[in-house]
Amino acid sequence: MLKEAIYHRPKNNYAYAYNSSTLHIRLRTKKDDVDAVKVIFGDPYTWEKDIWQYSKSLMLKEGSDDLFDYWLIEVEPEFRRLRYGFELTDGKETLFYTERGFYKDVPKHTGYYFCFPFLNGIDVFTAPDWVKDTVWYQIFPERFGNGDASNDPSGVLPWGSEAPQPTSQFGGDLQGVIDHLDHLSDLGINGIYFTPIFTATSNHKYDTVDYFHIDPQFGDEKVLKQLINECHKRGIKIMLDAVFNHCGYYFEPFQDVLKKGKDSKYWDWFHIKDWPIQTDPKPNYDTFAFTPFMPKFNTENQEVKEYLLKVGTYWVEEFDIDGWRLDVANEVDHSFWRSFRSEVKRIKPDLYILGEIWHDSMPWLQGDQFDAVMNYRFTTAALDFIAKDKIDKQDFKDEVMNVLSSYPHSVNEVAFNLLGSHDTPRVLTECGGHKEKLKLLYALQMTFPGSPCVYYGDEIGMEGDNDPGCRACMVWEKDKQDLDLMHGLKKLINLRHRNTTLGSNGRVVFEDSPNKHVLRYKKVGSREQFLVVLNVSDQSAVEKVPEGYDVWNDKVLAEQ
Amino acid sequence: MLKEAIYHRPKNNYAYAYNSSTLHIRLRTKKDDVDAVKVIFGDPYTWEKDIWQYSKSLMLKEGSDDLFDYWLIEVEPEFRRLRYGFELTDGKETLFYTERGFYKDVPKHTGYYFCFPFLNGIDVFTAPDWVKDTVWYQIFPERFGNGDASNDPSGVLPWGSEAPQPTSQFGGDLQGVIDHLDHLSDLGINGIYFTPIFTATSNHKYDTVDYFHIDPQFGDEKVLKQLINECHKRGIKIMLDAVFNHCGYYFEPFQDVLKKGKDSKYWDWFHIKDWPIQTDPKPNYDTFAFTPFMPKFNTENQEVKEYLLKVGTYWVEEFDIDGWRLDVANEVDHSFWRSFRSEVKRIKPDLYILGEIWHDSMPWLQGDQFDAVMNYRFTTAALDFIAKDKIDKQDFKDEVMNVLSSYPHSVNEVAFNLLGSHDTPRVLTECGGHKEKLKLLYALQMTFPGSPCVYYGDEIGMEGDNDPGCRACMVWEKDKQDLDLMHGLKKLINLRHRNTTLGSNGRVVFEDSPNKHVLRYKKVGSREQFLVVLNVSDQSAVEKVPEGYDVWNDKVLAEQ
Repeated sequence: MLKEAIYHRPKNNYAYAYNSSTLHIRLRTKKDDVDAVKVIFGDPYTWEKDIWQYSKSLMLKEGSDDLFDYWLIEVEPEFRRLRYGFELTDGKETLFYTERGFYKDVPKHTGYYFCFPFLNGIDVFTAPDWVKDTVWYQIFPERFGNGDASNDPSGVLPWGSEAPQPTSQFGGDLQGVIDHLDHLSDLGINGIYFTPIFTATSNHKYDTVDYFHIDPQFGDEKVLKQLINECHKRGIKIMLDAVFNHCGYYFEPFQDVLKKGKDSKYWDWFHIKDWPIQTDPKPNYDTFAFTPFMPKFNTENQEVKEYLLKVGTYWVEEFDIDGWRLDVANEVDHSFWRSFRSEVKRIKPDLYILGEIWHDSMPWLQGDQFDAVMNYRFTTAALDFIAKDKIDKQDFKDEVMNVLSSYPHSVNEVAFNLLGSHDTPRVLTECGGHKEKLKLLYALQMTFPGSPCVYYGDEIGMEGDNDPGCRACMVWEKDKQDLDLMHGLKKLINLRHRNTTLGSNGRVVFEDSPNKHVLRYKKVGSREQFLVVLNVSDQSAVEKVPEGYDVWNDKVLAEQ
Repeated sequence: MLKEAIYHRPKNNYAYAYNSSTLHIRLRTKKDDVDAVKVIFGDPYTWEKDIWQYSKSLMLKEGSDDLFDYWLIEVEPEFRRLRYGFELTDGKETLFYTERGFYKDVPKHTGYYFCFPFLNGIDVFTAPDWVKDTVWYQIFPERFGNGDASNDPSGVLPWGSEAPQPTSQFGGDLQGVIDHLDHLSDLGINGIYFTPIFTATSNHKYDTVDYFHIDPQFGDEKVLKQLINECHKRGIKIMLDAVFNHCGYYFEPFQDVLKKGKDSKYWDWFHIKDWPIQTDPKPNYDTFAFTPFMPKFNTENQEVKEYLLKVGTYWVEEFDIDGWRLDVANEVDHSFWRSFRSEVKRIKPDLYILGEIWHDSMPWLQGDQFDAVMNYRFTTAALDFIAKDKIDKQDFKDEVMNVLSSYPHSVNEVAFNLLGSHDTPRVLTECGGHKEKLKLLYALQMTFPGSPCVYYGDEIGMEGDNDPGCRACMVWEKDKQDLDLMHGLKKLINLRHRNTTLGSNGRVVFEDSPNKHVLRYKKVGSREQFLVVLNVSDQSAVEKVPEGYDVWNDKVLAEQ
């Protein structure tokens, strides 16, 4: 048995409260190295005649990646306290693995064992229930629909008249979204994620100038209220984008600093290293990346913190929004996000908090900060496999199991699974224009645990390279929309809505296939299971379906 | 190269902010498997002509345990942001290890690398500076000194007249501590940790009845103020014991519940499962362990939280205490402790917060909760090796490196290193009465990073088994004190006070010795280093000391 491969450390993804009464315990071992793992567990204070009283249960092998197997067990400790260890067998030897290392005999004293001291409800990672049943649609407001010509900026270009440039303006606005809600409802969308809509200078609005007002080019607070009302009536949730890492250059407090220097009462709102302020060759104040137009906030300053928390609560309280997506979330301090969570959840306990983090995000997903992050690791794996043929099926399965094992189940169930965004090339472009690949990607996305998101226009076959290419105007002429693609996606979304086991209520279990390019996985729920079979190639393949399965290829899919 | 053994995950002990400008990056590899590790690192936004700009630096092998080597590097990122990966060489192959796994060629894009997004000062684990220079003395007040006969409980036993029983009372009090402060100052003590002193029923006072008053058997608030004044004049810090997991059975709110049941306004202050309340065979309300006399608080109840936070701040604000030791700290929710930290540090930023946790404690030591935990893993390793001959030298070194590698350096520097407490047998008893072993243990403890603590009476050779044996009355008759032991300890404490490299400012680097029972380790500081050589046996041994060392055995130790 390879001891060096065996890993466990309580909390994070290895031992966590799945809910207020259930613990999940995970163990990692070398791939195909261990035949069976039992967990040895008991209440730390239950002793009889000086002997600790424990139970044993077999763990389930959840899955594997390229190097490791992952084992899981659910435990409901009667008194919410647990000490536990592992008994590993490989046919040749049996080892006991505890907090103090490996033993040949089972240690007798609780002091040796791993500890989950107490399952306190308030510490349990708890995301809003509705998130796992939501299919999102991401809107970049300047490019979705122009519903009100009166708020068009000067120099506005005719809708879709040319390829977007970094500073193009096409006049999209909130009224344009209201006008097209039928399109979303028809598709089965029940959540909209808007990139920023507050007053800002650029067309993407990530350089906020006024956190308390809708950008006049997009409309005003009245239109937003109307939009939210309309959406709520249709059962569509609304998530706005909070840019709290930095503001825009023309944000009044920063302008005040530019004018008054150290005499400005906002001097400490930013990280200014020197005076006078300069922007070339590099800004001498902290910024997002090295962009002088995005001065970084000093979120440790109490006034800044209160100001931004006020922003956070204002839009929830006054406009009843359902979620905040947090831009550049991992560069802001943890302490700020803890306060943010407690403030916004005080007002609306089932608000969704989604952080933009591209990397490993466990430190933000422990129950005290975010509900989810943008799951770009899912995106990359899916695109590398299906869109780009960059990795093979085994690599894909390994990467998916690696990601899923890196987080608690409760986190995976609400992960924000996207195939692309305003920050990436469009997914059809990533597919080299091959629509069949995109259909497979949608099939994967819609049968995967988490909360899937469709980037505006992807559903009708829009293409486009990285920013600015991926930010073209939505195409509304029916004859220019790929309706076949859209209807395919619509079927998948409906299928997911009707069968939650296809979504977050089903666990992914990969299966082998004799066909190299066929990906098979089960979605295992508590009372039913699905088998998803995807042929990731243009060659036909014959796959066996075990007895008892009701084949949906034609029947059900056609009915949708 | 054994890929399965290689481990890194940002935050916790593997990548953390050591201070507001410095990151520590650690990597784990299989023992003796890798020749060299370089870290590849750079700012994520520094690109030239589409190529990410990074640097490379060799990592230091910090130490090893039985299975693994641990590598460390310090980095000061100019813009406080970092992406990084590892280049590992074993003579045969070179591998690149990143967040996405292993590669044969160096990945070009930052997306592959590990991410430390931003070094925000407010998130940095920061313990009070004075802690690493403190040598503590733990006092169990009922048994240290009876300075005021007028507050003796009825049925008090003559001081030291018999072996302590679970409910014995000997009349120790705070005046008794004031009377004996010279003893502590003489020893070199500059911190006292008191087990609970608030009104309670038992002799150990862990069943609090009144959180706002000194137990009348110990004195009153006036005496405490006097004691703290006296101590502060002598440069001695004061740490009190906060029992916030549970109260005593006779705590008024619990009594109110017993009387009024669900009509009590305190019903929700506890976790009561059923009515009427019963204590047999097991209490039908949550308790500490299964002790009916210690009902567990519902710290998620806002009133309870506010009440206990008020206790926490009251004794700091009104009595200027310097530390809180938190009883059964890991069974209380994280959310409570975060509020606790922010409340008490608001009043006294350099207050020491010490949690009682016997197990792996990383989740509480991330900067938002505790400054330290009671380092029982150090205790166990030291006793198993030196006192009990239960493990050999190699096991000891492995365990020590394992503990040190499990935490950030900043955490290790303020760990509460004890050899025993009111909850364990006395250390001399663990040594089977062998005083020479105890001297070695003190030499180890006083030359180890952390904040060492001496349990009252251990310094004069008191013995005693687990509770109640370890809680005997302090022996004040000079002729019954082991003055040789005490003077030996005094020398070591003074040596530590004068040479901070022997303490927390020195890194432990184990050395080989030709003698099986000789433990050698360097303490490596920034400008000096010490070599500690301990002969853990009763056989003589010859050890070589490298040139350039000034041997202190006789000279310096005799001078103290």
